[in-house]
Amino acid sequence: MFSKQTYINRRNQLRSQFKTGVLLFIGNDECGMNYEDNTYRFRQDSTFLYYFGISKPGLYAIIDIESGNDYIFGDDFTIDSIVWMGSQPTIQDMASTVGVKNTGSISQFSERINDYPKKKINYLPPYRPEHQLKILNFLGINPAEAHAKASIPLITAVGEQRNIKSAEEINELDYAVTVTAEMHQAAMRFAQPGMNEAQIAAKVHEIALAEGGDISFPIIATINGQTLHNHYHGNVIQEGQLFLLDAGFETLKGYAGDMSSTFPVGKTFTEKQKEIYRITLAAHDGAIDMLKPGVHFRDVHLQVAKTIFNGLKSLGFTKGNTDDAVENGAHALFFPCGTGHLMGLDVHDMENLGEQYIGYCGTPKSKQFGLKSLRLGRELKEGFVLTIEPGIYFIPELIDLWQHNGTNKDFINFKKVNEYRNFGGIRNEEDILITDTGHRILGKPLAKTIGDVEAERVKAFQA
Amino acid sequence: MFSKQTYINRRNQLRSQFKTGVLLFIGNDECGMNYEDNTYRFRQDSTFLYYFGISKPGLYAIIDIESGNDYIFGDDFTIDSIVWMGSQPTIQDMASTVGVKNTGSISQFSERINDYPKKKINYLPPYRPEHQLKILNFLGINPAEAHAKASIPLITAVGEQRNIKSAEEINELDYAVTVTAEMHQAAMRFAQPGMNEAQIAAKVHEIALAEGGDISFPIIATINGQTLHNHYHGNVIQEGQLFLLDAGFETLKGYAGDMSSTFPVGKTFTEKQKEIYRITLAAHDGAIDMLKPGVHFRDVHLQVAKTIFNGLKSLGFTKGNTDDAVENGAHALFFPCGTGHLMGLDVHDMENLGEQYIGYCGTPKSKQFGLKSLRLGRELKEGFVLTIEPGIYFIPELIDLWQHNGTNKDFINFKKVNEYRNFGGIRNEEDILITDTGHRILGKPLAKTIGDVEAERVKAFQA
Repeated sequence: MFSKQTYINRRNQLRSQFKTGVLLFIGNDECGMNYEDNTYRFRQDSTFLYYFGISKPGLYAIIDIESGNDYIFGDDFTIDSIVWMGSQPTIQDMASTVGVKNTGSISQFSERINDYPKKKINYLPPYRPEHQLKILNFLGINPAEAHAKASIPLITAVGEQRNIKSAEEINELDYAVTVTAEMHQAAMRFAQPGMNEAQIAAKVHEIALAEGGDISFPIIATINGQTLHNHYHGNVIQEGQLFLLDAGFETLKGYAGDMSSTFPVGKTFTEKQKEIYRITLAAHDGAIDMLKPGVHFRDVHLQVAKTIFNGLKSLGFTKGNTDDAVENGAHALFFPCGTGHLMGLDVHDMENLGEQYIGYCGTPKSKQFGLKSLRLGRELKEGFVLTIEPGIYFIPELIDLWQHNGTNKDFINFKKVNEYRNFGGIRNEEDILITDTGHRILGKPLAKTIGDVEAERVKAFQA
Repeated sequence: MFSKQTYINRRNQLRSQFKTGVLLFIGNDECGMNYEDNTYRFRQDSTFLYYFGISKPGLYAIIDIESGNDYIFGDDFTIDSIVWMGSQPTIQDMASTVGVKNTGSISQFSERINDYPKKKINYLPPYRPEHQLKILNFLGINPAEAHAKASIPLITAVGEQRNIKSAEEINELDYAVTVTAEMHQAAMRFAQPGMNEAQIAAKVHEIALAEGGDISFPIIATINGQTLHNHYHGNVIQEGQLFLLDAGFETLKGYAGDMSSTFPVGKTFTEKQKEIYRITLAAHDGAIDMLKPGVHFRDVHLQVAKTIFNGLKSLGFTKGNTDDAVENGAHALFFPCGTGHLMGLDVHDMENLGEQYIGYCGTPKSKQFGLKSLRLGRELKEGFVLTIEPGIYFIPELIDLWQHNGTNKDFINFKKVNEYRNFGGIRNEEDILITDTGHRILGKPLAKTIGDVEAERVKAFQA
């Protein structure tokens, strides 16, 4: 938890954006896996954490603009619970650590919220079923309508505030990324042919847990890097293959790191792997070089698309005019996703509030395949933290689909592409802060050049 | 997954318990941590797994008693999803592997379920908020009433069936317990003074993940073993303290192991620790010796309570007639929980269906402190799998409460007890199958005598 004053200041800044109304914050509950008491690790809602700092299930908070009062509501532990769980602070104790004087029980919350005219109450979009039940129960809003009735002024105010990271948040993010880099380094120094993917994912996860935090999102640890949403860890890894790891650390305060690395299962990359790796790394470093306040992130993304398309053209995978190709989205056969996303308390920061508000300032996103997956499309400001993560993927299902439909056939050499259909995928990812004059890569550096990665890999075989 | 015939047989056995009606099974959904797409690991509902075997979010299944038809409903992946997730089997493909011919989409499920008279539909108690939303959406039942309207005949039939483990389930449980024992052994061979609890929990968790499964419940790894529901791992462990680990493995098929061990943070137990340890181990081994078909588990529990009370009497913590003391619940100052619980696809098997039906055959539980926490109070049958886990705990909050209230003051030497208020807690736990003639301890043996535990601990200091 940060100091009491941090939370008071954050709430005051938010309050200054409103002249009237009531801001309601619904904390998360525990979620049972296979029965109610066998729970996943508890994760507090990030906006609740940001303004109220308390990581405990079953809480509600209110900022009442007109009266100037803040409230935290929740039920205290009973003596029965304390016998099982040890001494526990009261809601009042916890609230005082974040500068909130007014507290009450859930039944007092129910009375309080009923006292307000419903149309004055601003809430954020529900992303868990318990939020929908609570919105139904306390506000009388049908679950099917709960999302649409969320407050756009509140989304926007929270989004603009949370997007600018303070010095203490940057410090915490540096720590999150440093541990993230250690997780990746451990994998590079551990993986050997004959292991299965789960063993490497387990080693990476252990480091996050031993540090006292956890992973910030489900680990991707795979020889099938071309499968972008891949959490299957059942394959045995073999000499000659590429291993793609996408994993991050979440600190106890809830801040995320998020890195990707790609390394050979053996000691060295093959020549073919090096050729593709050099292109993704050039796109990656080129994107980072562009980052500074005032730059539009769509331009960074399009620059990456061109670097990838040109690089692949030099190897015979693509053909034709690069500008035309990128305008038509031809690069998206190899790079169907975005160059990066905002990061903070959430690894995709505030994705629960809606990408169109947080990453796009309310303007509509492109509908083009590839560009529609770009999560960030706005001008960068000092204090933004974002990922840079271009990749090149050979996705058999997508190659077959495009070839069958003749998609972008003037820009793609499908014969050459098909020779690589078992290649896999390559991605590097780092986390970057936008500074007043440019940018700074967060955390401890991780090997990313071919030489540095191979030097790490040698260590896995020395034990 | 087991063979197709296993699932067909299981459904046929269940069907034979009903003459009419419709049995509805609601699978689990993904649960987002801090936004919808950042999910916890998916855990399918155990009863869904038992009868329909498919571990995929968003499914519904129906057993229609009168028509004799079974159905599985869910939406197939789109080509867009396949590009991101790789090739995926269809619902029809998956259903055929468990012998279900009739499949459909969610909108077809909606039509199908609407065709049945509502009062013919039997469903199990909801334990996740998404279940409540689905019951509201498809059956029109208010969330506040959804639990009370669950079908007791279905609960009972499922409970009696799942309580008797088949040979292939026993095989899977043996495997779950063997990996669980390896997790504990690894902790014994790893923990050293100066580490923090999180490092040991992380090592234990790594072993579960590397095996390709996960933990079956949140790990307890603590120097405060007296705190029974303790998932805080922030303490540095020190020479002279006891370390209590309660952790289990869940196999890919979803079966649980659950063991506890207590070992010294240093190489050896102190004399005081040995005295208490010997009592819990005598209670533990005595309980296991009693296990066979026909024995009432309450009698096992009361035998444990007496062994603990007598042992503590010999050390001066307790006094008076043991039978009277146990009848008054005086042992519960040190042993406020139950001797064991059923185990299977859930670590507390079918806790979601209700303890009174599964562990108590529908008869009411005792309300006495201590006995009310016994999760199993019925005659044992061949094929039951359960844990044995007596413990002795010095709980400062409970000691203060009893002393203040004078609870059981004729049986407790509070002066002596207070000298041990920083002692912590000791528990051993193993998993046992009830056989036709007696019992068998599942899995690979784990060190539990003082000599064997100390022999393991020496290895932690040899690296």
